[in-house]
Amino acid sequence: MAEQHPRHRAPHRDDFPGEGAARGTARLEAFADAVFAIAFTLPIVEIKVPHGDEPLTAQLAELWPSYLAYAISSLVIGIYWIQHHFSGAIYRTSGHWFNVATVLFLTAIGFIDFPARAFAEHLPDPDGRGPAAIFFVAGLALTGVTWWIKWKVGRSRGHVDARLEPHYVDCLNRRYNVSTVLLIVAAALALIRWEVGLALASAVTLFYLLAPPTPVYTEEAPIVEGEESA
Amino acid sequence: MAEQHPRHRAPHRDDFPGEGAARGTARLEAFADAVFAIAFTLPIVEIKVPHGDEPLTAQLAELWPSYLAYAISSLVIGIYWIQHHFSGAIYRTSGHWFNVATVLFLTAIGFIDFPARAFAEHLPDPDGRGPAAIFFVAGLALTGVTWWIKWKVGRSRGHVDARLEPHYVDCLNRRYNVSTVLLIVAAALALIRWEVGLALASAVTLFYLLAPPTPVYTEEAPIVEGEESA
Amino acid sequence: MAEQHPRHRAPHRDDFPGEGAARGTARLEAFADAVFAIAFTLPIVEIKVPHGDEPLTAQLAELWPSYLAYAISSLVIGIYWIQHHFSGAIYRTSGHWFNVATVLFLTAIGFIDFPARAFAEHLPDPDGRGPAAIFFVAGLALTGVTWWIKWKVGRSRGHVDARLEPHYVDCLNRRYNVSTVLLIVAAALALIRWEVGLALASAVTLFYLLAPPTPVYTEEAPIVEGEESA
Amino acid sequence: MAEQHPRHRAPHRDDFPGEGAARGTARLEAFADAVFAIAFTLPIVEIKVPHGDEPLTAQLAELWPSYLAYAISSLVIGIYWIQHHFSGAIYRTSGHWFNVATVLFLTAIGFIDFPARAFAEHLPDPDGRGPAAIFFVAGLALTGVTWWIKWKVGRSRGHVDARLEPHYVDCLNRRYNVSTVLLIVAAALALIRWEVGLALASAVTLFYLLAPPTPVYTEEAPIVEGEESA
Repeated sequence: MAEQHPRHRAPHRDDFPGEGAARGTARLEAFADAVFAIAFTLPIVEIKVPHGDEPLTAQLAELWPSYLAYAISSLVIGIYWIQHHFSGAIYRTSGHWFNVATVLFLTAIGFIDFPARAFAEHLPDPDGRGPAAIFFVAGLALTGVTWWIKWKVGRSRGHVDARLEPHYVDCLNRRYNVSTVLLIVAAALALIRWEVGLALASAVTLFYLLAPPTPVYTEEAPIVEGEESA
Repeated sequence: MAEQHPRHRAPHRDDFPGEGAARGTARLEAFADAVFAIAFTLPIVEIKVPHGDEPLTAQLAELWPSYLAYAISSLVIGIYWIQHHFSGAIYRTSGHWFNVATVLFLTAIGFIDFPARAFAEHLPDPDGRGPAAIFFVAGLALTGVTWWIKWKVGRSRGHVDARLEPHYVDCLNRRYNVSTVLLIVAAALALIRWEVGLALASAVTLFYLLAPPTPVYTEEAPIVEGEESA
Repeated sequence: MAEQHPRHRAPHRDDFPGEGAARGTARLEAFADAVFAIAFTLPIVEIKVPHGDEPLTAQLAELWPSYLAYAISSLVIGIYWIQHHFSGAIYRTSGHWFNVATVLFLTAIGFIDFPARAFAEHLPDPDGRGPAAIFFVAGLALTGVTWWIKWKVGRSRGHVDARLEPHYVDCLNRRYNVSTVLLIVAAALALIRWEVGLALASAVTLFYLLAPPTPVYTEEAPIVEGEESA
Repeated sequence: MAEQHPRHRAPHRDDFPGEGAARGTARLEAFADAVFAIAFTLPIVEIKVPHGDEPLTAQLAELWPSYLAYAISSLVIGIYWIQHHFSGAIYRTSGHWFNVATVLFLTAIGFIDFPARAFAEHLPDPDGRGPAAIFFVAGLALTGVTWWIKWKVGRSRGHVDARLEPHYVDCLNRRYNVSTVLLIVAAALALIRWEVGLALASAVTLFYLLAPPTPVYTEEAPIVEGEESA
């Protein structure tokens, strides 16, 4: 079969000695996907069915900050999941320190629910709004930094698919560098004027709703996972 | 092997350039399954063990609205999961905008627990029953609309298995169009008479408990996943 | 390759037309595993860190019913997961009604946390102990019945691996029939004397901690998943 | 294909009769990963958005024990996940008693959130600090013991990859023996002086942040999962 599809040649032990037991990315992605899915879905338990004296319609309407918290969490975690899923096609192996960096990133993903909720629930409160926004922007910046660390560890330890065109990998690298700097700037700006910091952090995050650049390979390579053997 | 099973020929990069890193649907399904599983199982934490003065049997019996909320959530999410699992055989690839549409749909799946609980918990309350039912029907309609958006995005961006008979895909398309219109009508009717809206939305949702039409292929194609290479 | 390993011939569309899009069991198992994992892990959120005036050691010790609830849930769900994992080697395909039956079973698995907690938390309470035990035994019986329904649906719809020896499948069938009857008897007995019902239901459940009989095949068949192609 | 890659020969039924339906480790890993992911992410729901009278910044800062609890849980569970993921390359099959041992280990993983939270929340409390630290160290020791039991069961029942060099497996065995003894010693020491017990248990746990020794095989063997067939 190696003769039939030489371009599919899998990396063997000799090609990638790695640290610890280097493995493909399948199970790392599976663990990450599960953490994403839980962080994505958990916030719903924070919304409690109201049983007050007012008409139920009014009580349900008054819960809008909770709905907003759920929507913000879903949006942020959804965007990160989409980028993480995309990067599953960029990395080709995993190793010990890449796992450690991924766990650090997932710690931030699991945490972001809390600043998002703090921000949404304090939005109607003139005194709390500012501090809550700063806290949320700091959470976004922290998450961005852990993503960047994961990228740097993955790249420096040879986990990025070696068949990708170097200029393509450089392009991703520039993107992640610029986004991370902007998120840190946003967190700093938020301390001065929270509206500006929040706007910048939101813009950087929403930018990743756009499709990432299609990977460019130096040689022919399969792009559709799970069908490589057909 | 391509010679042995020409009908299994997998789409390669040239066949499906896609946006971003187009991939098979395996990991997208895995993420979606995890969100479904969490939304399906989480409602149990909303039921608290009673520690009142009444006999425990009576206290446990009085929790029936909570049991009903759990049953409704399980039924609705279970039905959507079954349809989503089925559609895993309909879509053949995923791409950036299809991922975005799936995340939107999953946001609705994660949210539906709350209107289901609001409805069940206010069922014994004559004043709250109506508004809660409207809220629940609106939630069902919203979920239906996001499913429909996912379908439209998946179809228009070429993620549907090209080996399916066009009339079969048209049949699914009609189903989803009609269901979505009926769910929106149900939400509108619920504002006038909640019982009617609720009955219609329930009927549309329960319709999907029936087996979907078996896929019809233009050429021979494997139907059992994970065994294609045997 | 079919020539090299004729015994691995995968069922194709013509062999198993099924309802809806019949598929292998991989994703159904994945969804079920996720529900099991959540139901298994969720009960920990019910245990709250005490902040009372007594010495902390005493307060932590007084939480023993909560620890017991966690242990019981883990044991029951763990046993069912092990059996479900085992049955992943018994079923070979899935289909619409089998999916529906699995969702029904998973609804019971997700629910069992609540009767387990009600039982453990009311164990120190002389008045509540009996009703709580009845509720728990009823929960175990309900879960057993849904497992049995899944088995019957899976078997009657042809999802059981056709390469298994008929007497082996009959042996499993007898086991599940007998267990289900015993669990229903236990629930009935519990209404009369809860200790007896509880003892019987516990014995039936704990029986499944023993290894299931090793599958017997009519022809040579691979038993180790994921390595069939080697 | 067996001729082309004789070293990839998969174990068949005759090679590994096992108890019950012996299977590969894929689904066992998937279930374990899901439990890890949930235990890793759940603690965030324990942090409640403050709505008091103090300035929000002060209220958010006062929540530091909750943030610490989240960080400790993430660290401990993250370290165990990384080791568990690594061991997925060490074990080659699973079987009934190995599944039982894994469920026992996962029960401890799911529980560790609670002692971690109890410790972090009582850290500012001079009276509670000691008992809470003892409870946390006991939790770490218990988790270590269940990991050790899983290893012993897996090894004695032949689930360890037979292609690994015996001295490599012995090296892992020594590691796990020593760690387990040290964790038990730490729990005993904690009863006398909690600071010492806590320091030892933390040191043992943090040791596993280091990369495990790269597996050494007696014959050439693929190390990158999911790419064996290429």
